Amino acid sequence: MTGNQSGEPHVPANHLASAPLPADTVGLLEGLNTTRAIRRYHDEPVPAEVLRAILFAATRAPTGSNRQQFRFITLTDGPKAHAAKELIAGAARDLWKRKQDNDGYQTGSGLVENSPKARMAAAMQDYVDHFDRVPALVLPCLIRYREPSSFEGSSVYPACQNILLAARALGYGGVLTGFQAFVESELRSLLDIPDNVFVAATITLGRPVGHHGPVRRRPIGELVYGEGWGEVPTWAVDPPGTSHTAAGPKNPKPTY
Amino acid sequence: MTGNQSGEPHVPANHLASAPLPADTVGLLEGLNTTRAIRRYHDEPVPAEVLRAILFAATRAPTGSNRQQFRFITLTDGPKAHAAKELIAGAARDLWKRKQDNDGYQTGSGLVENSPKARMAAAMQDYVDHFDRVPALVLPCLIRYREPSSFEGSSVYPACQNILLAARALGYGGVLTGFQAFVESELRSLLDIPDNVFVAATITLGRPVGHHGPVRRRPIGELVYGEGWGEVPTWAVDPPGTSHTAAGPKNPKPTY
Repeated sequence: MTGNQSGEPHVPANHLASAPLPADTVGLLEGLNTTRAIRRYHDEPVPAEVLRAILFAATRAPTGSNRQQFRFITLTDGPKAHAAKELIAGAARDLWKRKQDNDGYQTGSGLVENSPKARMAAAMQDYVDHFDRVPALVLPCLIRYREPSSFEGSSVYPACQNILLAARALGYGGVLTGFQAFVESELRSLLDIPDNVFVAATITLGRPVGHHGPVRRRPIGELVYGEGWGEVPTWAVDPPGTSHTAAGPKNPKPTY
Repeated sequence: MTGNQSGEPHVPANHLASAPLPADTVGLLEGLNTTRAIRRYHDEPVPAEVLRAILFAATRAPTGSNRQQFRFITLTDGPKAHAAKELIAGAARDLWKRKQDNDGYQTGSGLVENSPKARMAAAMQDYVDHFDRVPALVLPCLIRYREPSSFEGSSVYPACQNILLAARALGYGGVLTGFQAFVESELRSLLDIPDNVFVAATITLGRPVGHHGPVRRRPIGELVYGEGWGEVPTWAVDPPGTSHTAAGPKNPKPTY
């Protein structure tokens, strides 16, 4: 670590050019299985060395034909970074408000203190309340060369996962959201993002308040099929000690 | 490992239910930075224990609102698996033939023996020639509840990356492709995939002929921006020893 706190202009590039990446303290499979969405961060910057290692890992992800059309706008504490965080924070608060209503966070078990739903709601409220102060925010983008389609995400969302996993490797954490979509035109103006660029996500990053740990999902036998849709292979069995969770909010009626 | 070779019906579920996941031998950051696209596989099945660990990791990936609408059809050696592999192999061969022409693999350095382009072409030819015999093939899917969009990939492609990384963790390897899109209706019939399901990719998996190792990309300073589009942060510096590669084929003129 250098004495620099901001991850911005004061770190001489040549320092990092001669600095190897940090050593591993977490195993690969362990990391995949214990990287949680982290929404509460200590109020301290992500050091330049950590940002470099996280974004380096991002760029190691695959892209279609290895075209590497992905780009990663990484916002920390410059004036545009602050403006972008405030913009997206506004969208996040609006969206969370709507979601609370639509997804029933204010009804049923959402009203039961300490129920998973109530805890999730409290975490989300805290997240959006402090969103403008997230230590770092990455906007993963894709320079388009084909018509937009559902498939184009295959050249940018694997890199998003690498970002979250690399953060985990380094004692940090983050979460993948879509908040930027609701202030996209303002963000394009602010950050000079060209029209032919798909802004794929908003990833916030910081040092976790709370912990990573085993991720909970539905039983693997509900998610993995074998010889056809709905056919469960005999090996699709959770390892001992796996905890489960319900799926997220009830799906709305399909809108298409 | 059990004596079972197929990863299919003969492994009793209770064996895996009491078997923990394999221990890690690769670090998390190391894994992110050294997981290459693996297109050549030894001609041997992926054991049930390995499939279970890989698909378990897939299901730990994030999805929007944790809805877990992803599903993973995992094809090994049943009759439908063989039929699906042959179908997709046909599409892969057609596509590779077209791509060779369109992306100039038969011109310029593509004709120079042992050039990166010629080696890539040889690897792709070998891949599509043997595609119908890949040891395992995963079709990651997403049950849609909204209109199709570029964003929906954020709930399935992070899991695809987990699959490739988990394979790396276990001494296996794979590659993410889009070949299934060209035989989608036939695959839907064969595997009973409902209409409201997005078939997001084809991932082939097996034990690598060849090796994982440091992934090569464009310099990080070309892919990572700071306070706005095109602004390179001072920390965006490759670590010592990084090898670079050109981006993939030249982009066609945008078609949109």
